[in-house]
Amino acid sequence: MNQLKWIFANGKLPSLYYYKKLGMEKSFSYADLLLFTKNIFKKIGCSEKDSDIAARALLSADLRGIDSHGIARLVGYVRLWEAKRANTNPDIKIIHETPSTAVVDGDGGLGLVVAPFAMQVAIDKAKNVGTGWVSVQNSNHFGIAGYHALKAVEEDMIGIAMTNASALVAPTFSVERLLGTNPICVAIPAGEEPPFVADLATTTAANGKLEILQRKNQVAPAGWIQDKDGNSSTNPHELKSGGALLPLGGDREHGSHKGYALGAVVDIFSAVLSGANYGPWVPPFPAYVAMPENMPGKGIGHFFGAMRIDAFRPAEDFKKNMDQWIRRFRSAKTVEGEEQVLIPGDPEREMEAERIERGIPLLHGVVEDLKLLSARFKVEFF
Amino acid sequence: MNQLKWIFANGKLPSLYYYKKLGMEKSFSYADLLLFTKNIFKKIGCSEKDSDIAARALLSADLRGIDSHGIARLVGYVRLWEAKRANTNPDIKIIHETPSTAVVDGDGGLGLVVAPFAMQVAIDKAKNVGTGWVSVQNSNHFGIAGYHALKAVEEDMIGIAMTNASALVAPTFSVERLLGTNPICVAIPAGEEPPFVADLATTTAANGKLEILQRKNQVAPAGWIQDKDGNSSTNPHELKSGGALLPLGGDREHGSHKGYALGAVVDIFSAVLSGANYGPWVPPFPAYVAMPENMPGKGIGHFFGAMRIDAFRPAEDFKKNMDQWIRRFRSAKTVEGEEQVLIPGDPEREMEAERIERGIPLLHGVVEDLKLLSARFKVEFF
Repeated sequence: MNQLKWIFANGKLPSLYYYKKLGMEKSFSYADLLLFTKNIFKKIGCSEKDSDIAARALLSADLRGIDSHGIARLVGYVRLWEAKRANTNPDIKIIHETPSTAVVDGDGGLGLVVAPFAMQVAIDKAKNVGTGWVSVQNSNHFGIAGYHALKAVEEDMIGIAMTNASALVAPTFSVERLLGTNPICVAIPAGEEPPFVADLATTTAANGKLEILQRKNQVAPAGWIQDKDGNSSTNPHELKSGGALLPLGGDREHGSHKGYALGAVVDIFSAVLSGANYGPWVPPFPAYVAMPENMPGKGIGHFFGAMRIDAFRPAEDFKKNMDQWIRRFRSAKTVEGEEQVLIPGDPEREMEAERIERGIPLLHGVVEDLKLLSARFKVEFF
Repeated sequence: MNQLKWIFANGKLPSLYYYKKLGMEKSFSYADLLLFTKNIFKKIGCSEKDSDIAARALLSADLRGIDSHGIARLVGYVRLWEAKRANTNPDIKIIHETPSTAVVDGDGGLGLVVAPFAMQVAIDKAKNVGTGWVSVQNSNHFGIAGYHALKAVEEDMIGIAMTNASALVAPTFSVERLLGTNPICVAIPAGEEPPFVADLATTTAANGKLEILQRKNQVAPAGWIQDKDGNSSTNPHELKSGGALLPLGGDREHGSHKGYALGAVVDIFSAVLSGANYGPWVPPFPAYVAMPENMPGKGIGHFFGAMRIDAFRPAEDFKKNMDQWIRRFRSAKTVEGEEQVLIPGDPEREMEAERIERGIPLLHGVVEDLKLLSARFKVEFF
């Protein structure tokens, strides 16, 4: 895989790029980072069990190469707790249900803990009646959607996970930011082949991609962002001046109304269906950003689904066909200069294998943050 | 709404554009076209009831301004029947089910008849256990996804409809066409506001948009199509020379891997989950195109979902929030030159109201086809 593909692999920020271009502190073992993260969560009041759940969910982002959503955000979660915007001892519960659905109230807990609870409810319902669908209110940011969706795959189910997030995205024709990057993940088991894992923000480019351009003082491609008046912009700092990320498609002529519609569906399933906040009222992740006024719901919202394969067909038949699907796509004739057509989930899986073996490289600034947390909470850092 | 917006409204081909630029035969009343269509379906062997179901599903495309998928395709359905590729007297049945899921075998029937059957199964299951999910094998093209999804909205449910289709789309990095335009519709009820209806092909541009450029001998915007070697092309005739439509996003830098992943999810839910054909093996709509070799499944596949609103929250609470959501987005500050941020479904609903009142304009070539059908089957045309 060439370098450019690493940079943009599934719209994420994989390590090789940082590694070569930005200078990394060094690599850390997954086990060490997991233990450190777990200990920090314990220090801010999470139970032993919740600390483990949250640390595994958070670190899965680093393993899969989505560095913007991993341990780099640990300090952000701590600040949410400091600002009393995250409850580290929540009473998470089902507040409404039918045989195939539930609404979960996260009690203001960390999304890293609330989401695994809700996904398990979906899986349990699927065991009983074929599928389970859970909308979540009163939660916080849950890490990467892929981690939660893959829990269903372990049970021979299709897993679906989505979440809304604070507004950075302007719908088509809008200058106002009304939607988050609102990711969707669909994870599908196969037989001999690894699972198909589509995990995508409903924007042209994830926010993390802008961050890297900011650090390098480079321009962004047209179609990623607009300025405060809605003009196309290549300035990666534009969001600080009232600009916005653009929905997948980029502009009307290239289908941005479709990206907008998909982001809207995520917002509605996650928040209107659960009673969480939606649109411009979604609470921000950075604790220093003021909360929106007149919030119509509770916290941020997520949506999870689990569909048992054998609720449709014998799982073996399905998996045989999935293997054929994957092999046919992977062996398609490529455009010149590309080695292979990728299956969604390929880059993250390769990254995970590499990082489990060789460790997780962290940016200098991230390591500095972790050292500060280490000193403050008297938790050993490696 | 300005003309350009009509042209590209939700990626469809609304009538005003044809009307002004291409010269229409004249407008026909919905009732007349419905009766004619129903009579043609009867002549090719559909029962009275199925003819009515199929005609309503087909004509809904014309009403909603998606002219490429409406009565213009009636002759195509007749040719499928002639080629013995569509069974007009099918034994449609559930072949596997759980309380919240089913697989429906369409027995090679018209998708226009099979899809309403399957959507009703999803709705009935949602009444019982909160949600219903139905994957369909052995079907044919079902018209527009929006028609089927909206059936659930009538029951205070969220409706989901998707279908695979014959391969015209090249995944990211592929020169081969492996996916159809694979549309997804999500229809969501509101309270005082009309429903939210996101109905989108998972490509940058629908095939119908290319057809209009072909007729006018105009070039396509970059990012819609590639030539047979995978180079970006602006030639709308490129598909005839081995070119391909591009997934939503257009190219890798603008997120085409996301459009590819979404189209793949539609393919897998519709066909791998049901036992229909997938990827490059999906049967073509034009009866003169040879069937693929070594087909792994039966017919084409669809996927439907219905989620009862009150399986999550009291419907009144949900609708109040949906109204607020819709009003907030619709009243957002717009970029210069645009009147309003649109809610998905707005353009089609406006078109439907207009066409019910003023009639449905048809292209000259479409009217000629209908006259030939009229003569051949001795069915009165107006």
